[in-house]
Amino acid sequence: MRKALAFDIGGTKIYSTIVDENGNILYEPLKFSTPKTIDGIIKILTEQINIHENEIDLIAIATAGAVNNENTAVIGSTGNLVKGYYTIDFQSLSNKPVFLENDANSAAWAEYKIGASKGTNVSVMLTLGTGVGGGIIINNKILKGKSGAAGEMHFKMYPDHRRKCSCGSWDCYEAYASGTALKITAEEMLNNKDVTTYDVIDGVKNGDSKMTAVFNKWQNDITIGIMGLANIFDPDCVVLSGSMAQFVNLKKIEEAVNSDIVTSPISVRLATAGNFSGMIGVSLLAMENIEV
Amino acid sequence: MRKALAFDIGGTKIYSTIVDENGNILYEPLKFSTPKTIDGIIKILTEQINIHENEIDLIAIATAGAVNNENTAVIGSTGNLVKGYYTIDFQSLSNKPVFLENDANSAAWAEYKIGASKGTNVSVMLTLGTGVGGGIIINNKILKGKSGAAGEMHFKMYPDHRRKCSCGSWDCYEAYASGTALKITAEEMLNNKDVTTYDVIDGVKNGDSKMTAVFNKWQNDITIGIMGLANIFDPDCVVLSGSMAQFVNLKKIEEAVNSDIVTSPISVRLATAGNFSGMIGVSLLAMENIEV
Repeated sequence: MRKALAFDIGGTKIYSTIVDENGNILYEPLKFSTPKTIDGIIKILTEQINIHENEIDLIAIATAGAVNNENTAVIGSTGNLVKGYYTIDFQSLSNKPVFLENDANSAAWAEYKIGASKGTNVSVMLTLGTGVGGGIIINNKILKGKSGAAGEMHFKMYPDHRRKCSCGSWDCYEAYASGTALKITAEEMLNNKDVTTYDVIDGVKNGDSKMTAVFNKWQNDITIGIMGLANIFDPDCVVLSGSMAQFVNLKKIEEAVNSDIVTSPISVRLATAGNFSGMIGVSLLAMENIEV
Repeated sequence: MRKALAFDIGGTKIYSTIVDENGNILYEPLKFSTPKTIDGIIKILTEQINIHENEIDLIAIATAGAVNNENTAVIGSTGNLVKGYYTIDFQSLSNKPVFLENDANSAAWAEYKIGASKGTNVSVMLTLGTGVGGGIIINNKILKGKSGAAGEMHFKMYPDHRRKCSCGSWDCYEAYASGTALKITAEEMLNNKDVTTYDVIDGVKNGDSKMTAVFNKWQNDITIGIMGLANIFDPDCVVLSGSMAQFVNLKKIEEAVNSDIVTSPISVRLATAGNFSGMIGVSLLAMENIEV
């Protein structure tokens, strides 16, 4: 059975493991803090490649940032990656084929192959974490766009310049639907700069009506974005992943969406491919796309 | 050369002509008022079919409403079509193959094959008319979604319940970017119920500063929606068609979009396939999909 040496390179952490062609993780992933330099990142990758190169067929890297349509390079660095990250020549690190894909796209592919959206034709995955990631699968292909950067959830929710977004613009979906956004919604509604995301989640659990109102506003903003995506893509399902997805009321979101859209009803589901879905997804994608 | 008997069935008008496989229209399209009954619509179609059936290879129908993924039936009636329109069995009207596609999708396909988006991999077409239609082409395929209804431009712009949308919901892009929306923006900004879309267009031409401010607000709302679509699809281009497209400043929209998005720059273009692009597009699509 073919195997991939898999990496997940994010702004704060790098993970590594081996994934087989059924999507099984072969050992507990290693975890590294993301170095602040390109050389530091290359060193981590090279060490793992040197250890495992003889037992694997290819190298599959899920990474922050947009990846080109040839799956060979990062085409632009996001704010939280080291400067010049996109200049790394990943293929030069090994004689085995190296395959890259954006982390959210990779996770969406894992859900599609072995997780919550398995068997669907059109699915939208939203990763609700510090930011909001997006991965869209249409008829067995990831939506990549002309340059590879498609699936960015930066459509404007309230285009009145109320909230700065991490992308540099204003009022994007991410600025209202992310975990960070929940804190900002709480700050605004409670007029309290010190309130945390945890305070809101905890308050909801304890039946605090103010915290519940904050949470409901945030969940409603998530819902409104899904309504738009449902009308644009007419998907079978929307899969929610990321650290914040566990807190939302899927049934309530699904009912609200389906009562509002002009396309046929969608299903709203929790991701099931696990915390390492990025590495699983990019490995499966690499093994489908590269003959080794 | 193969030929299609083509129809364009809308809420107020039905057009008919013959289109060849190069996308040429063979005679000045006939124009009918859309009957208020199903039988009336069938009568118009049947008459044209009886006249032309021997000289054509298939029948291609661009229609209002969503069309299923098999291109055989309308899956739901829009508000401006007669009740039960979706029950028409179009194939029963002829022994020649009958092929249907949504009118906006058909027009987008015409732009892709012979018009403004020819040669692109990913394009989004927006029809700015009484409403806003959408047609999205990704790697030589129309984005249809699970049921055929994808490409609906009903994502929320200002989700604060300010404007009713034709779809029954509130605050969709269509409610801010359509020709109808321009009048409503004028009413709101000028506090005058009697102002018309024509007044605004005329005022802009004459250098009226109030009308120019109204127009700029409307054009900015169009722009904001395109920003979101650009981040979601990373398209080569956005094509603007419909009766209102001629009035917007393409260059200004393009510059504003490209200064704001996280994906690579897009081109904003005017449609070039003409007023009968729906019939051209559906005919070309039918001849590609059906072997006759």
